[in-house]
Amino acid sequence: MVPPPTPSLDVDQWFNSEPLTLDSLRGRVVLIEAFQMLCPACVTHSLPQAVRVRKLYPADEVAVIGIHTVFEHHDAMGLDALGVFLAEFRITFPVAVDRPDPISSIPATMRAYDLQGTPSQILLDRQGRVRSSTFGVVDDLALGTRIGRLLAEPTQTPISSDAAIGPSPDFRATGDEGPSACDADTGCR
Amino acid sequence: MVPPPTPSLDVDQWFNSEPLTLDSLRGRVVLIEAFQMLCPACVTHSLPQAVRVRKLYPADEVAVIGIHTVFEHHDAMGLDALGVFLAEFRITFPVAVDRPDPISSIPATMRAYDLQGTPSQILLDRQGRVRSSTFGVVDDLALGTRIGRLLAEPTQTPISSDAAIGPSPDFRATGDEGPSACDADTGCR
Amino acid sequence: MVPPPTPSLDVDQWFNSEPLTLDSLRGRVVLIEAFQMLCPACVTHSLPQAVRVRKLYPADEVAVIGIHTVFEHHDAMGLDALGVFLAEFRITFPVAVDRPDPISSIPATMRAYDLQGTPSQILLDRQGRVRSSTFGVVDDLALGTRIGRLLAEPTQTPISSDAAIGPSPDFRATGDEGPSACDADTGCR
Amino acid sequence: MVPPPTPSLDVDQWFNSEPLTLDSLRGRVVLIEAFQMLCPACVTHSLPQAVRVRKLYPADEVAVIGIHTVFEHHDAMGLDALGVFLAEFRITFPVAVDRPDPISSIPATMRAYDLQGTPSQILLDRQGRVRSSTFGVVDDLALGTRIGRLLAEPTQTPISSDAAIGPSPDFRATGDEGPSACDADTGCR
Repeated sequence: MVPPPTPSLDVDQWFNSEPLTLDSLRGRVVLIEAFQMLCPACVTHSLPQAVRVRKLYPADEVAVIGIHTVFEHHDAMGLDALGVFLAEFRITFPVAVDRPDPISSIPATMRAYDLQGTPSQILLDRQGRVRSSTFGVVDDLALGTRIGRLLAEPTQTPISSDAAIGPSPDFRATGDEGPSACDADTGCR
Repeated sequence: MVPPPTPSLDVDQWFNSEPLTLDSLRGRVVLIEAFQMLCPACVTHSLPQAVRVRKLYPADEVAVIGIHTVFEHHDAMGLDALGVFLAEFRITFPVAVDRPDPISSIPATMRAYDLQGTPSQILLDRQGRVRSSTFGVVDDLALGTRIGRLLAEPTQTPISSDAAIGPSPDFRATGDEGPSACDADTGCR
Repeated sequence: MVPPPTPSLDVDQWFNSEPLTLDSLRGRVVLIEAFQMLCPACVTHSLPQAVRVRKLYPADEVAVIGIHTVFEHHDAMGLDALGVFLAEFRITFPVAVDRPDPISSIPATMRAYDLQGTPSQILLDRQGRVRSSTFGVVDDLALGTRIGRLLAEPTQTPISSDAAIGPSPDFRATGDEGPSACDADTGCR
Repeated sequence: MVPPPTPSLDVDQWFNSEPLTLDSLRGRVVLIEAFQMLCPACVTHSLPQAVRVRKLYPADEVAVIGIHTVFEHHDAMGLDALGVFLAEFRITFPVAVDRPDPISSIPATMRAYDLQGTPSQILLDRQGRVRSSTFGVVDDLALGTRIGRLLAEPTQTPISSDAAIGPSPDFRATGDEGPSACDADTGCR
């Protein structure tokens, strides 16, 4: 099965970095950590995990990018607040701010990637293709396995038929409808 | 040694409660949890601990109150943002908003209690006297011990000479001067 | 309610100490940690907690004693094995070996204290009286509270009517009958 | 670099399984968890981690085997004690008992694999070759990565030049000389 084309990051602004494109990260495995600064499972689980990922792997093997995908309480999670949050919580990897949609609470990149809520983790292979997209809390053993599988693939050749991951069964559509809610053990949707 | 008079809570607004006075809590041990919503050690350690305290003890034995003592990044931690934070992080005990001081970054109650930073934990005995005030992270065994000592004291009689706690050696003065900084393992000052 | 007389420790041997009597510990709060070296909840929860208790309090305020109450798999938990276990796990407080009963699997002190299984925690007040006896896992906040209450009591005077703890509702009888079983989250019975 | 031939498991007895050979596991990634039942880092870290590994992956993709490599305190860690330990700690994957060496404290398989102490984790690829051997505590993210890399390799084809793991730099020789010692944060050697 051929993964669909990878959406560009449609974002307004970057923290901790000049603007980046996914194309510039070709050759590396990329973890895109979608979060909201007031999402409990993001703050207590997924962002610390992303920091561990950043520390474990050489930067030229695995890239870590955050994307602030605000889909609720937009006023409480503005740019200034995010800047303070990133500084206080010592998030030093590049973080993009997802572009608000004037006619929907769901921002542009979140919609393009069809994310169900926060935290969500998207993994790109060395060729820039989405290989998994997971909503909610993932433990370190499972995340490490996914990254290890992608690290083992060569940069240039096609995906071997042994590559079992493909788009994850967690890759589910989400809509605008329905009230949002957060659960500390899973996430916000 | 006689503890100094307990300052009133000089606050602007309450969440999760009608306005409270410390006098109304006489007869109970009171934990006042001073925090900032963007202080990492508050979010990951002290507020979850305060929630555990709220759950462990009967409400007529131990009262838990939060106080949002913003002394840095005031714009990022306004009332709306705090409301969202409390809802998302499921903080259901009463939380007061410390009154900003027009000529200092340190708000009124934080100054009156001479707090050094966040998180800070103030314990009042059943007679409403400050018995300890601690800046930084305290483990559950130590906090439980402090609360247990105060629970053992009768409501009306004077402090026995065995009551070893008194104002804690952690009770240190703080000033306006110097840049603030946060450390995830200790706190923000 | 007057607590019943405190049973003596009816034991065979001591590790990490000359033989001790409870009478010699009068004036201190005493934590007696009953365990088996192959009880998972003892090894992963209660013994590390007892080590924390040993470190937190001055030795002349709180004494910590282990008692190895083997009631199952006696051959696998003999004296030599216990000695190795204590050394490897860095248990440095005094540990007594409960006296085997020739006609029952339950050893002598375990029976005298009517313990239900391991881990069990017995707390004595400064006057040497049993004030709580709990089977299973207790969290640090609750244990700290119990110790704090007892620390607040004077050594000589009678228990005040405010002293709410008394023999714990966890203080349940246990018998010889039925197969024993361990659960990692609770304990062995 | 070609990995050296994989030593056979030279063992006396199996728990939780009929006798196994590594050859019979060809096609799967194999985690061999070398431990001692009285090694603190094994009990609190590595064996629970091995249980998580057992649960996360399909059994026909990843096999988990324990090997009890006693090199100290042999009398305290005999077969009967090990049987009790495995039952109480709910270790249900196959566990082999390393064969004692009549003229050395180091048992046969431990010597053949040149292990430095316990815990040690050996990973075999789908072709049965040793791809890493690590003494001490490994976190879940790192272990997951190693397993993920090996899962991505096809069963039959040669190791690609991208396979970066190879024998780990942790793969160090150990000798008989010197007293053994355990550290809860690292292991026993």
